[in-house]
Amino acid sequence: MPPAKEHAASGKRLRTARAIQQATLQLATEHGYHAVTTDMIAERAGISRRTFFNHYQNKQDAIVGPKVDRFGQAYDWFVTSDGGLLSDLQILVRQVVAEASPDPSVIRNIGKVLGDSPDLQPVFSATIANLTRELEPLLSRRLGTEREPVAHLIAHLVSQAIAHSFRDWTVDNETALEQVVEKANSNIRFVVQTLGPG
Amino acid sequence: MPPAKEHAASGKRLRTARAIQQATLQLATEHGYHAVTTDMIAERAGISRRTFFNHYQNKQDAIVGPKVDRFGQAYDWFVTSDGGLLSDLQILVRQVVAEASPDPSVIRNIGKVLGDSPDLQPVFSATIANLTRELEPLLSRRLGTEREPVAHLIAHLVSQAIAHSFRDWTVDNETALEQVVEKANSNIRFVVQTLGPG
Repeated sequence: MPPAKEHAASGKRLRTARAIQQATLQLATEHGYHAVTTDMIAERAGISRRTFFNHYQNKQDAIVGPKVDRFGQAYDWFVTSDGGLLSDLQILVRQVVAEASPDPSVIRNIGKVLGDSPDLQPVFSATIANLTRELEPLLSRRLGTEREPVAHLIAHLVSQAIAHSFRDWTVDNETALEQVVEKANSNIRFVVQTLGPG
Repeated sequence: MPPAKEHAASGKRLRTARAIQQATLQLATEHGYHAVTTDMIAERAGISRRTFFNHYQNKQDAIVGPKVDRFGQAYDWFVTSDGGLLSDLQILVRQVVAEASPDPSVIRNIGKVLGDSPDLQPVFSATIANLTRELEPLLSRRLGTEREPVAHLIAHLVSQAIAHSFRDWTVDNETALEQVVEKANSNIRFVVQTLGPG
């Protein structure tokens, strides 16, 4: 089993960054994304402008949220595990989701903001692309360098499955966060079954 | 077996659009993408400015090339086939590649231009996203609407596999175009094997 990921001294910094993201999302749902200014965000989050720019370059950065080092040392178990790849990926995805999304309201507000401002879609697509880029080296290390294209494709498949489940989740508020992970994983399982022999 | 796709009266229009794309790519490899103007493109392609804007909105459009209706009527066989999905996808991908890329030099020049101007990557990522969006309804019709997320993920997987093979191909000029398809398909097969049970 994987060890719980360590939470270092960066805890306070991360909390502030998340509070700023929350404030940005709230303001965007209230006024529309394009009407929101960094001054409004700083006021809502109860911080100075200077603190805002300590954490984010601009409001687009702030709405995406803090960059978390999701795949550090704590994921060495994944590289060396001799468990089934799909079930190990399920454990990994569960950890990623638990760490990335401590507050369900963030995801819900992202869904609302995207509904109002579809032009922001590329911003969030970029975060999916980031997840792919982070997963890729982990998978490459596990599968071996000669399987690099396979690692690349699996990283894509997994991050798309997660993104898809999250999008569904923003529509159906009744689902628990845990079920988002289950859904992503069962969709990957269906893909494998559908493309598999027989 | 699928019928050969019909080539309608749009043949001449398509040839002109491809000639403009070729000219744009050549100029971009010679002068760098950002130095190329629509006037230069029109001159190189031997057409008027007006003809250029008949085919493309701007040089970014021109470098991506003509929008082809890849998944029209001719793909009904794919929706109703009771063959294996992966082997049917292989036939489909072979047709898509054959139709989308009649001239290997286009792909090679795209590789060169991307090497010089990495900021153009989103432009070509958009063409991969287009392929995904075109594949999705075909797969949805075949798999049934209750499998919509699976259709979505398979469409992603297939277009990523094709894009990955093409990227490889631009580096290794010795490979035949046909092998690009084989490689995309064998990579998908590896993904299924790697994620599959046992």
